[in-house]
Amino acid sequence: MLKEAIYHRPSTNYSYAYNHETLHIRLRTKKDDLTSVTLLFGDPYQWIEGVWQLQSLAMKKSGSDAQFDYYMAEVVPSFRRMRYGFKVTSETETAVYTEKGFFTEAPTDDTGYYFCFPYLHKEEVFAAPSWVKDTVWYQIFPERFANGNPNNNPVGTLPWGSEAPQPTNFFGGDFEGVIAHLDHLVELGITGIYFTPIFKAASNHKYDSIDYFEIDPQFGSKETFRALVAACHEKGIKVMLDAVFNHSGYYFAPFQDVLQNGAASRYKEWFHVREFPLITEPQPNYDTFAFEPTMPKLNTSHPEVKDYLLKVAAYWIEEFDIDGWRLDVANEVDHAFWREFRQTVKRIKKDVYILGEIWHDSMPWLLGDQFDAVMNYPFTAATLDFGAQQKISAAHYAAQINHVLHSYPQNVNEVAFNLLDSHDTPRLLTVAQGDAQKVKQLFAILLTSPGTPCIYYGDEIGMAGGGDPACRACMIWDQDQQDHDLFQVLKRLIALRKKHHVLKSASSHRFLPTANDSVLLYVKEDENEKILIAINQSETSYELSAHLQDENTVTVSDLYHNEEVALTLAVAPGSFRILQLQS
Amino acid sequence: MLKEAIYHRPSTNYSYAYNHETLHIRLRTKKDDLTSVTLLFGDPYQWIEGVWQLQSLAMKKSGSDAQFDYYMAEVVPSFRRMRYGFKVTSETETAVYTEKGFFTEAPTDDTGYYFCFPYLHKEEVFAAPSWVKDTVWYQIFPERFANGNPNNNPVGTLPWGSEAPQPTNFFGGDFEGVIAHLDHLVELGITGIYFTPIFKAASNHKYDSIDYFEIDPQFGSKETFRALVAACHEKGIKVMLDAVFNHSGYYFAPFQDVLQNGAASRYKEWFHVREFPLITEPQPNYDTFAFEPTMPKLNTSHPEVKDYLLKVAAYWIEEFDIDGWRLDVANEVDHAFWREFRQTVKRIKKDVYILGEIWHDSMPWLLGDQFDAVMNYPFTAATLDFGAQQKISAAHYAAQINHVLHSYPQNVNEVAFNLLDSHDTPRLLTVAQGDAQKVKQLFAILLTSPGTPCIYYGDEIGMAGGGDPACRACMIWDQDQQDHDLFQVLKRLIALRKKHHVLKSASSHRFLPTANDSVLLYVKEDENEKILIAINQSETSYELSAHLQDENTVTVSDLYHNEEVALTLAVAPGSFRILQLQS
Repeated sequence: MLKEAIYHRPSTNYSYAYNHETLHIRLRTKKDDLTSVTLLFGDPYQWIEGVWQLQSLAMKKSGSDAQFDYYMAEVVPSFRRMRYGFKVTSETETAVYTEKGFFTEAPTDDTGYYFCFPYLHKEEVFAAPSWVKDTVWYQIFPERFANGNPNNNPVGTLPWGSEAPQPTNFFGGDFEGVIAHLDHLVELGITGIYFTPIFKAASNHKYDSIDYFEIDPQFGSKETFRALVAACHEKGIKVMLDAVFNHSGYYFAPFQDVLQNGAASRYKEWFHVREFPLITEPQPNYDTFAFEPTMPKLNTSHPEVKDYLLKVAAYWIEEFDIDGWRLDVANEVDHAFWREFRQTVKRIKKDVYILGEIWHDSMPWLLGDQFDAVMNYPFTAATLDFGAQQKISAAHYAAQINHVLHSYPQNVNEVAFNLLDSHDTPRLLTVAQGDAQKVKQLFAILLTSPGTPCIYYGDEIGMAGGGDPACRACMIWDQDQQDHDLFQVLKRLIALRKKHHVLKSASSHRFLPTANDSVLLYVKEDENEKILIAINQSETSYELSAHLQDENTVTVSDLYHNEEVALTLAVAPGSFRILQLQS
Repeated sequence: MLKEAIYHRPSTNYSYAYNHETLHIRLRTKKDDLTSVTLLFGDPYQWIEGVWQLQSLAMKKSGSDAQFDYYMAEVVPSFRRMRYGFKVTSETETAVYTEKGFFTEAPTDDTGYYFCFPYLHKEEVFAAPSWVKDTVWYQIFPERFANGNPNNNPVGTLPWGSEAPQPTNFFGGDFEGVIAHLDHLVELGITGIYFTPIFKAASNHKYDSIDYFEIDPQFGSKETFRALVAACHEKGIKVMLDAVFNHSGYYFAPFQDVLQNGAASRYKEWFHVREFPLITEPQPNYDTFAFEPTMPKLNTSHPEVKDYLLKVAAYWIEEFDIDGWRLDVANEVDHAFWREFRQTVKRIKKDVYILGEIWHDSMPWLLGDQFDAVMNYPFTAATLDFGAQQKISAAHYAAQINHVLHSYPQNVNEVAFNLLDSHDTPRLLTVAQGDAQKVKQLFAILLTSPGTPCIYYGDEIGMAGGGDPACRACMIWDQDQQDHDLFQVLKRLIALRKKHHVLKSASSHRFLPTANDSVLLYVKEDENEKILIAINQSETSYELSAHLQDENTVTVSDLYHNEEVALTLAVAPGSFRILQLQS
């Protein structure tokens, strides 16, 4: 038994409240090392004649990554508190793992040896709004989605799609354009739009805010925005805006005041200024986003800044009834600010959604007191590496996804914001070397993965484009230039996800070993049904019969094609199947 | 190389801001496995021609526990942010360890592989009040320290020390008694008193509060308490009170109201009631501390309860100028409450101290937003196991202490509240089987360990007593029954700790391997001096000369006896030495 590989730490992804009465406990062990793990647990105060009262419960292996197996158990402690340890058994040895190390027998003379879940406070349970897990998102970069009203075109607006997207060109996308095309989204099955920033700003991407209380005039008025939200809500579509609170833009009035008045400015504490007067070359002498002088970092610990930004956060919910905030560069803002942010917005609208932009391990923001979700870039990377670029095998992909799933609590995984591309990355089709078949397979993975899928505008009709700015091209509305086949595939996948709830499941996402590195198989199962997803990236047909036998399958329905199929079926090269298994 | 043993996770004891500009980064590896570890790091936004700019820094081994080695590096990132990984080298292999796993070479095409410290917010730096690390605490159980005024004796008060302490007897200890004996503490060198609860309550221990705004009449009036705090402050002694906020007492007016009015009580939401009417047998149908019906758990998420308790927290600071709060059963109260508690009390008195009672791994409370310290019971257990009960070897002790030290950031270790006993445990002398020599050795360890030492009243003059209630006996004031020798030893040790700051160091606490399981040696070193502490628990004399040679020692001063000694010196059986080494 490799004891050095055994790991657990309370109040992380290894132990958490799943709901107001249920705890999830996980243990990490070396891959393929143990034969069984038993959770030993009890109420910390339940003693009989000097002996602490321990119960035991077999833990299930919930998955494996490249190095480790993960075991899991679900417990409802009668008095909302628990001390616990683990009985770990390999082929040659049994030991008891506790907070104080390893023992040969479970100590019952002192609970102090054991890990502790002190008390399950229902207010501390991670709880995203209930609508989120059912949402299918669509990301819109407003300058490039549709120009519905030429009257609000900024100076120098180019004819729609007449040039390649550049850091500084404008095509006049606006809210009326979005309103005019909502039916396109409804037809696809979209139930939430994430808009990149819409507030008054200098650039075409609007991440350099000038005024957080104003709509950028190129997009329309506040009344148009109100109409947009109303139109979305009428069609069952939630609206999420982008909160760029890490930094302001160069032309944000308080920053202009500091530029002009230096140390005498009443706003000098609003930023992180190292010395006065401010300079921008060779490097800014104030903190910025990256080294970008036009994006001065806001001092979110300053009471006035906090007050200003929290008023912004409240305003757009109170006045325009938006449903969510996506938080730009969320990891570089302090936790205390986000805690106040959460309290502020949830007080106004209980089921508002908070999504942080964080690209790395995000556990500290997902403990229930800050965000409801983060942008799941580790999912993106793994899925593209397997599905678009064939950089990794199916087994490697399974290991990476299991790693992500075990890095967070299950209730966090249920609402992870899964994306395959965005305004910050090359487009899916381009990463997949222009191969629309691969894009279909990637959509199949996206729509059957735990978390909430997000489609980047235009991907559904086959738009291509490299990294920023190429990924920000004008949406193609010319029917003749759209990939209708791709649209129909995605539409069908979205419909399947809505109909078969198990496809969203985060508790059951079991990868099957395959005989072919390029074939990915996973099973999703709940009390109602069992579904096998098969992705064949290879150039040969892959027979499924042996796997169906392993799963004790008696009948198979092809859900995608809505037909009964034989048990001897295969997955054609470059295709996917979504099969309902019955045993 | 055992890769499964290698562990790091950001925003924990493995990576933290030590001060407003310095990061500490640690790595855990299998014990005795690696030959070197190098930190690879850079600013996430510093790229030159598509290549991320990485720097490197050798990490130092900072200690080992039973299973693992720990490596450490200190970095001042120019722009307060950092991405990083580790180059790990064993005798046979080199690898690069990142958030995305192991690589053969350090990737420089994407910072996304690396661990992230997003931004060093000075407001997020863990920072206990500066006075704390220099404090020597003394714990007083007020009912049993001294009866200074018989007029406030409760009904049935027994003559001082006339009977063994019982859960329900009273001896009339009070504030005037404390005031009258402050010189005893001053002589010993005490600079802080921790009082167990003093508010109006039914029991002798007062952990069952009736009114948090009233002094229990048996201790005196508010005026006497004010005089006590003033007298302490005049003598350079800080005053810390016990906040019993997890639960109230049975006779707390809101709870009485719920008992009487059931579901109609306006206070019904103040507690965690499962059903009305309330019953106490066979088990309470409301949440309590443990299963104690007289200690109903408070609903600290309820706005009125929060408001009430935060007013209590503020009141005793504002009105009586107390210096600290010790938080009873702190782990069972919600984190959001403690965050508000911290903000409330620090707003009133910036350098007030917050100490939580937590017996297990306390990292979630020690991230800078909640407590300044927790009661360091893991230190207690290890120190008694080695020093009082000879259950573990010196090497095992070193491993356990290193484990505790590496479970928390260094700035947390600097103010850990170290105790060897309390009103909740058997007394030190009793655990040491009545052997005063062992108690002296334990005091020597306590006073040379990182953190702030606390002496339980009476230990300094040799009081004995088993677990509660025996550990709560009346303080012995009869000079003939006091162990004056023990008092003098402790007094001398306290004086040495105050004079030689390195004795408090948490950054340098290096255990030396010894040839005898019962001999503990550790070295503390800073830019000014180097001190060797030697504890000989064996029955034979232990020669130090080889160790002195290893440390390149030229001259040795015995600090405890204040004399130069020869390089050939030894530690006598059952004794300790504190030696200043010069090379």
